[in-house]
Amino acid sequence: MVAQSEQARTQQAPPNPERIFETLNAYQKTAALKTAIELDVFTAVAEGTITHEALAKRCQTSDRGMRILCDYLVINGFLTKSDGRYALPPDSATFLDRRSPTYVGAAAKFLALPEIMNLYHDLPAIVRAGGSLKGEEDTVEPDSSKWVEFARSMSGLQRIPAQALAGLLNAAAGEKWKVLDIAAGHGMYGVTIAKQNSNAEIFAVDWPQVLQVARENAEAAGVAARFHELPGNAFEVDFGKDYDLVLLTGFLHHFDQQTIVSLLRKVHAALKPGGRAMSAEFVPNEDRVSPPAPAAFSMIMLGTTRAGDAYTMSEYDEMFRKAGFTSNEIHRAPGPQSFIISRK
Amino acid sequence: MVAQSEQARTQQAPPNPERIFETLNAYQKTAALKTAIELDVFTAVAEGTITHEALAKRCQTSDRGMRILCDYLVINGFLTKSDGRYALPPDSATFLDRRSPTYVGAAAKFLALPEIMNLYHDLPAIVRAGGSLKGEEDTVEPDSSKWVEFARSMSGLQRIPAQALAGLLNAAAGEKWKVLDIAAGHGMYGVTIAKQNSNAEIFAVDWPQVLQVARENAEAAGVAARFHELPGNAFEVDFGKDYDLVLLTGFLHHFDQQTIVSLLRKVHAALKPGGRAMSAEFVPNEDRVSPPAPAAFSMIMLGTTRAGDAYTMSEYDEMFRKAGFTSNEIHRAPGPQSFIISRK
Repeated sequence: MVAQSEQARTQQAPPNPERIFETLNAYQKTAALKTAIELDVFTAVAEGTITHEALAKRCQTSDRGMRILCDYLVINGFLTKSDGRYALPPDSATFLDRRSPTYVGAAAKFLALPEIMNLYHDLPAIVRAGGSLKGEEDTVEPDSSKWVEFARSMSGLQRIPAQALAGLLNAAAGEKWKVLDIAAGHGMYGVTIAKQNSNAEIFAVDWPQVLQVARENAEAAGVAARFHELPGNAFEVDFGKDYDLVLLTGFLHHFDQQTIVSLLRKVHAALKPGGRAMSAEFVPNEDRVSPPAPAAFSMIMLGTTRAGDAYTMSEYDEMFRKAGFTSNEIHRAPGPQSFIISRK
Repeated sequence: MVAQSEQARTQQAPPNPERIFETLNAYQKTAALKTAIELDVFTAVAEGTITHEALAKRCQTSDRGMRILCDYLVINGFLTKSDGRYALPPDSATFLDRRSPTYVGAAAKFLALPEIMNLYHDLPAIVRAGGSLKGEEDTVEPDSSKWVEFARSMSGLQRIPAQALAGLLNAAAGEKWKVLDIAAGHGMYGVTIAKQNSNAEIFAVDWPQVLQVARENAEAAGVAARFHELPGNAFEVDFGKDYDLVLLTGFLHHFDQQTIVSLLRKVHAALKPGGRAMSAEFVPNEDRVSPPAPAAFSMIMLGTTRAGDAYTMSEYDEMFRKAGFTSNEIHRAPGPQSFIISRK
């Protein structure tokens, strides 16, 4: 009852344009968080540098700049402030202190690249045209250094979902697996499976420069001997055959449905009877507006691809069935992505 | 009790990087809201165009672009969606439907200009330097067309606070007032006083091109005969003397404290004994991090000025006293600004 009357009160509040103006200035939130990560403010606070003057000295900035930056981070929940002293709330301590094993700061580099942010200055034209003004090559360009940067900056972030996936597949049971990792990127999904299952052989597809990042991760995990490279474009390279498992992590969303179905046919052909395709994807509910994180991913696809999307489960189900798969199951993953397990 | 245990549950939630990623993508919120305003989506929905296909047709966009844009606006609270049909929540109906008398869409143009947004790509360098890399002329440039645009886009938005101020000063009592409106911009504060008090004469200071916008507003309000122009830089122009009231609306925040004090001395000299200066300003609490809207204004001053700020009331009090004022009162205004009334 308390919660309900609170809600009723809020709904009766007089109209207020504050959130409109907050949103028109929201680009400053991106800039401030990225700047604090770049200046390593969170690590400095975690190590006990807690006034703006001391932080300015340590991070080699002006007093005024550091004070305004830190206060703005407090307003947005990334620092706390008490008696002029800053501290880290739990999420910042876990994800923004460079010394934390779950540090995600490296991903900030990729997510808020000025050249990606600038695409959105043209959003009215993008909405008119129906997709990226740059053309498909922007996404699937053969040797885009963007994807090397992406692979490097995202590996840390994908450790937890990769472990969740290996657990979901029961990799540790040690069955003899031939695994195809399509658009492997950082390679963390295949590498984590290989680490948990010493009878798994991984065949990774991606551009040669990107596979180098995956190979580094395979070496670091001690599974390089079972890590094989299939360099090239996933639509053109010969996958080989008789796979037990095909990984499609964060790849399908870049394309239109017809293109996805044609790729899935190729995946289907490469699988053993009874083999499984495992996709990690941003899958909103059928209403396309919830939960917020996977639903909002469609805005990234609108700005950066010609026809990619955050597809719903019914859309994925239809695409996999068209390609010959017999059943599809969805599992929520840690973070905004879901796992879809599709059986041949 | 219900609310408390809900809070406890939230605090014990496992760490989640979702808000970090949401913030790294927050620039897309700015772009989406601005785009929807530019395409006039909110007006179209208000007029009964409620599916994405129909909206695409009416706003001359692609289906895909309109669907993703509208869903993203739902995720961010600017539209609602039910069975594939969009509707306006109360704040959007009040402020984003072009036919509403309180439409604020014109302000979006100025607040999210690409050239202002791009300044924040350099935020690390700005924090190091302590202020705008562009130099003071960016703010106080004599004939910046930016300020003409600003004056035009902000007049609608300032109608409500301008009426609140005229009420606070009891303009309607009709005392004979000589009013100086410094950096008048759209002129709405002085014009509203003149409209409510037919014995008020307004003397407006700003660049000639900007005063033209103020004059248009004075004419529209039927007070042009009592609207006088003092074109030029507020720091250099001769104000004249014996003013009952000096208006300083949204101006002081652009400067450092020493510059403000020197301007306030000039204001003090122009006032009659017992006359009042009335400032409209973003004044956070002494902690500088609350309330969020005036506190976050300091980030705009960091990016766009060399030494401006969202000053606290104790700082304004000190500046006004240094300039000779005897008392200062603060009044919360509708919206993020406060009124400071300072007596000679």
